[in-house]
Amino acid sequence: MPIQSINDLTLHFLKDIYYAERQILKALPKMAKAAQSEELKQGLMHHREETQGQVERLERVFDSLGKRAVGSTCEAIKGLIEECEELIEQTEVGPVRDAGLIACGQAVEHYEMARYGALIAWAEMAGNKDAVQLLNETLQQEKQADTLLNELALKTINQKAKAA
Amino acid sequence: MPIQSINDLTLHFLKDIYYAERQILKALPKMAKAAQSEELKQGLMHHREETQGQVERLERVFDSLGKRAVGSTCEAIKGLIEECEELIEQTEVGPVRDAGLIACGQAVEHYEMARYGALIAWAEMAGNKDAVQLLNETLQQEKQADTLLNELALKTINQKAKAA
Repeated sequence: MPIQSINDLTLHFLKDIYYAERQILKALPKMAKAAQSEELKQGLMHHREETQGQVERLERVFDSLGKRAVGSTCEAIKGLIEECEELIEQTEVGPVRDAGLIACGQAVEHYEMARYGALIAWAEMAGNKDAVQLLNETLQQEKQADTLLNELALKTINQKAKAA
Repeated sequence: MPIQSINDLTLHFLKDIYYAERQILKALPKMAKAAQSEELKQGLMHHREETQGQVERLERVFDSLGKRAVGSTCEAIKGLIEECEELIEQTEVGPVRDAGLIACGQAVEHYEMARYGALIAWAEMAGNKDAVQLLNETLQQEKQADTLLNELALKTINQKAKAA
């Protein structure tokens, strides 16, 4: 299906991030299971709950466009999750793996920030205030998740990884 | 090769971003060719020049670790570039494609920001000041490239895409 308008473009990237969020829902428990740090496990599982809410918010954005919520394969998130799985395969339980899991998690958050940033700009152009608000709530959660992972790395995990 | 220390982790992600930067070198001219906006074409080609410098900086970081610069397949960048190619296939030359190209470019910049952020934190832990400086120079360029793309979208291209 060709993309001919800014609405088509919005829908294209909405399907992409909808697929991505649902893949992230499946990946986060695996990352939490692989982590050693209790704080990291809890952070990842807390973000899984947030992600569930983000999926529901995306469904409301599809609604606001009069479209059915459907995903389309997002090669970027597949790659990001694959890199995370490779890291788990190549490490043992411990702070070095935890430091790597944080880096993988931050890459996922950054991908989402970029996607939501573009979607918000287009929803603003279209004057779709409901979509702007919904997408912005999610964007703030992604930024906060990234900040929390960063703090966890700098506060404890990188130091432990160095001593490992 | 198992990852057992923070140095192994650093090397693992250095190889990943080294591969990624070289893929980006090849992708940027294709994106510039597909763009309609002269300002976007120039921005993408300017960032290609910066990327050449970033590859050379990464080679100096490998040097600082006493390692040979080699890449390892980065599934994330492959996915990000594939999404960009899909967008080009599904659009005609014009502002809608340009708006999508900017979104794809910003996703790549965000990926790089996440990777360089982690690498800088680990280089700081290791007390490798040369690496910190080199990686930080690149991180600032990636942030600036993202800002320029964002400004271009908000200033002109999204408006043109809406009118298309």
